[in-house]
Amino acid sequence: MNMDRKRVIVQKYGGTSVADPEKIKCVARRAVACKKRGYDLVIVVSALGRTTDELLKLANEISANPADRELDMLISTGEQVSVALLAMALNEIGQEAISFTGAQVGIITDSSHTKARIMDISPRRISEQLKKGRIVIVAGFQGINLDQDITTLGRGGSDMTAVALAKVLKAEVCEICTDVKGVYTADPRLVKNARKLDSISYEEMLEMASLGAQVMQARSVEVASKFNVPIHVRSSFSGGSGTMICKEVSEMEDVLVRAVTVNKGEAKVTVCNVIDKPGKASRLFEVLAKAGVNVDMIIQNVSRTGSTDISFTVPVADLARTQEVVEKVSSGIGAEGIRFDKDIAKLSVVGIGMRSHSGVAAKMFGALASRKINIEMISTSEIKISCVIRKNAAGEAVRAVHRAFGLHGGKKRVKG
Amino acid sequence: MNMDRKRVIVQKYGGTSVADPEKIKCVARRAVACKKRGYDLVIVVSALGRTTDELLKLANEISANPADRELDMLISTGEQVSVALLAMALNEIGQEAISFTGAQVGIITDSSHTKARIMDISPRRISEQLKKGRIVIVAGFQGINLDQDITTLGRGGSDMTAVALAKVLKAEVCEICTDVKGVYTADPRLVKNARKLDSISYEEMLEMASLGAQVMQARSVEVASKFNVPIHVRSSFSGGSGTMICKEVSEMEDVLVRAVTVNKGEAKVTVCNVIDKPGKASRLFEVLAKAGVNVDMIIQNVSRTGSTDISFTVPVADLARTQEVVEKVSSGIGAEGIRFDKDIAKLSVVGIGMRSHSGVAAKMFGALASRKINIEMISTSEIKISCVIRKNAAGEAVRAVHRAFGLHGGKKRVKG
Repeated sequence: MNMDRKRVIVQKYGGTSVADPEKIKCVARRAVACKKRGYDLVIVVSALGRTTDELLKLANEISANPADRELDMLISTGEQVSVALLAMALNEIGQEAISFTGAQVGIITDSSHTKARIMDISPRRISEQLKKGRIVIVAGFQGINLDQDITTLGRGGSDMTAVALAKVLKAEVCEICTDVKGVYTADPRLVKNARKLDSISYEEMLEMASLGAQVMQARSVEVASKFNVPIHVRSSFSGGSGTMICKEVSEMEDVLVRAVTVNKGEAKVTVCNVIDKPGKASRLFEVLAKAGVNVDMIIQNVSRTGSTDISFTVPVADLARTQEVVEKVSSGIGAEGIRFDKDIAKLSVVGIGMRSHSGVAAKMFGALASRKINIEMISTSEIKISCVIRKNAAGEAVRAVHRAFGLHGGKKRVKG
Repeated sequence: MNMDRKRVIVQKYGGTSVADPEKIKCVARRAVACKKRGYDLVIVVSALGRTTDELLKLANEISANPADRELDMLISTGEQVSVALLAMALNEIGQEAISFTGAQVGIITDSSHTKARIMDISPRRISEQLKKGRIVIVAGFQGINLDQDITTLGRGGSDMTAVALAKVLKAEVCEICTDVKGVYTADPRLVKNARKLDSISYEEMLEMASLGAQVMQARSVEVASKFNVPIHVRSSFSGGSGTMICKEVSEMEDVLVRAVTVNKGEAKVTVCNVIDKPGKASRLFEVLAKAGVNVDMIIQNVSRTGSTDISFTVPVADLARTQEVVEKVSSGIGAEGIRFDKDIAKLSVVGIGMRSHSGVAAKMFGALASRKINIEMISTSEIKISCVIRKNAAGEAVRAVHRAFGLHGGKKRVKG
C-alpha cells in the first residue's frame, strides 16, 4: 500500500442540503472540517431545492411529452449550478476546490435517457485534482453516453453517482448527507420513540428503500452492496454519527426485526373472476410489464369455482396507466370486474434475523389484531413481511408493531 | 458545387426572444416556416430572459469575487436550458430537432474564462444532424477549452457563436433575430422619425456597436467582416426584412452619414497638470491597461507651461477601478488633481461616405451650436466623429444632428 496516498471520502449532499446560498456555505464549512481531519474529499451534489421540479414544469408548459434526451439536457443543468456555487463557497473560505459535470469526469452511461445506468467512470481527472490538495465537486445524477449526449440516472441518482465514485476511488466511506440523522427503526414523524440505528446491512436497507423509507435510492444500495462500499447515512447539518450501511455481520442476526416501514404511495387493484387457466394471469402481468408499470405485491387465492380474484399493488403514479391497460386486457382473460383502491398503506417489518428465527409473522399479525386492524394482503421475502391495511390505520399500526418488536429507544431489544 | 447540398441559414435568438414558454413556441413556429422554404437551419439561442443575471446574483450571494472558471460553469447552464426547451417546442409541432451544448459541437475556445475566444469549431455533428432533416439548436455564448472546461464568450457572446457557426457551415446568411426590426439611423426611443436602414457596412456597424448601439456585439461584427459572413439583423416576431450587414459596396459611399449614436454609459476623467515630458502620459495608460480598464477617447492639448491636462473616457462600470488606479499613479506623473464626471454623453456620427467627403465635422458642430450645446471633447476616426456633451443634452443633440444630416424617413438623403 502506498502510504503517501491519502484516504478518500465521498460525501453526497441532497437538494434540501444545498437549497440556498446559506446552506451551501454550511456545506462548505463542513467539507473543510472533514478535509482538515486529513482526508481527500470528493463531494457529490444534487440540484438546489426544487430546481429539478421547476425545470420539469417549464418543460411541461412547452410539451406534454418532451423527448427524454432533451429532458436530460434540461434537468442536468440543476446539478451544474450546484457544483459551481459550492466551489465558489469553498474558495471563499480559502479552500481550493474545482467543480465538474458528469461528462467532465467521464461518467459514462448507457443511452437510457432519464434512467441511465453507469457503465464506466475514469477517475483520472479527479485524482489529479485531489493530489493538488483541492476538494473535487462532482455534479450528481448525470453522465454522458458514448455519443456525448447528456444522460441522467433517475430520481435519487445522485446517490448512485456518489456510490460509483466511492467505488472507483476506493473511498474509505461514502457519506450520504441528508436532512435526517440516519436510518430509524420507523419514521420518527409516525413513531415518536423511534430509534436511530447505528448500523444496518445492505440487504435490510435495500428492502427498506424499496418499502418506502426515502433515505436512499434503492438501486444505489444494491450497487454499494455489490462492490462492498461502506455507506454512512448522516445529517448534513449536525456533527454526530448516523447509520452505517455495511455487510451483514454475525451479531446482526441477533436482531429479529430491524425496522418497521410504511408506504402510502401504492394502490391496490383487484381483477375479479379471472378464468383460472394457465396463461390468464401471466397475460395480465405481461401487458402491465410492457406498459412499464411497477407491480409490487401480487395475491391470488386458491380457486374453487373455476375462476379467481387476482389482487396486486402498483405505485399511485402508475395507477392511470394501470387502469387503461387492465381494462383493455380484462375481457380477454374473462375478468368480470376491476376494482381500484387508493386508500391503502403497506406496512412492513425488515430484519436479517428473521431468516433464522420464526414467529415474526405471528407477532406482527398479533400486534395488528390487538388494535383491530384488518390485514388485506400479505407478502413475504426472506428478510421482510409486508401487510396491506387501510391507509387511515397506518399510524396506529406502525406504532403497535414497533412496540411489539421492542424497537423503541431506551429498552432492551427483544430477541426472537 | 454540390447541388444536393441544401443552403444553410444560422438564426440567433437573444434572451428577450426566448424569455418564456410562449415566446419559445413563437420562435419554433418561425423556425419551421424558414425550414419549409427549403433551408437547413441551425439555431443559436441565449439564456431565457434575465437568467444570466439571476445566476450571477446567486453567485454574488456566495462570493464577492468568484473564480472565473466556476462562473462559466454556472452561467453556461442558462443557454443549456434554452436549447433543450426550444428542441421540445419544435418536436411538439412535429419538427425533428436536436439540441447541443457548445462542448458537444466542438466549439473549442482559449482558456480566458468569461471572455474566451473561439479557436475552432468542428461542424461534423451539426452536418450529420442537418442531413437527417433535423433543425440543430446550439447553446450560444459557450464553448470548451482543451482541458474540457466550460468557457463563456463574454456579454453578447451568442452573436459570436452564430457568426462562427455561419462561417464554418458556409451559411448563406447569419440572422440576428432580436427585439428591434433592424439597425436605425438613430435610437427610435430618442428620435421619433429615425429610419430603419436596409443595409450597412461591417465597418459602420462595428463603429456603431462600439459607440453604444446595442444591436450586436462589436467583436462578432469584426469576425463577420473578416470572414465576409452576411448578417441580417431582424425582428424575432415580425416577418419583414431588417438590416443587412455586408461588405462595403460602392454606392454606400454616396451616403455621408449612415447613423447617429448616443452612448450614456461612459464617464470622463481629467488628470490635471501632468508633467509634459515623454513617458508620463504613457505611464498613466499603461497602468490603466494593466488594470483592464477600457479607455475610449483620449484628449491632450498642446502644453505651454510645462504641464498639461489629460482627459479620457471610460465605461461607467470601470470607473471605480479607474479611480483607484489613477490615484495611485498620479503623484508619480506629477499630476495635481483628478476630476471624475459621470454626467456626460458621447454623440457620434458614422458613415463610410465621410472618408471621401469633407464638411461632416462642420455640419455636426454647427447643428450642436445652433442648439447651444457645448462640445467638451472631440475624437475622430476615418468613418466617425464623436463629441462628448452634457448627458442631459443628449436627446436634443441627437435629434438636431439627425435632422442636419437628413437621416429621417420620408425625405431624400442629403449628400455631402
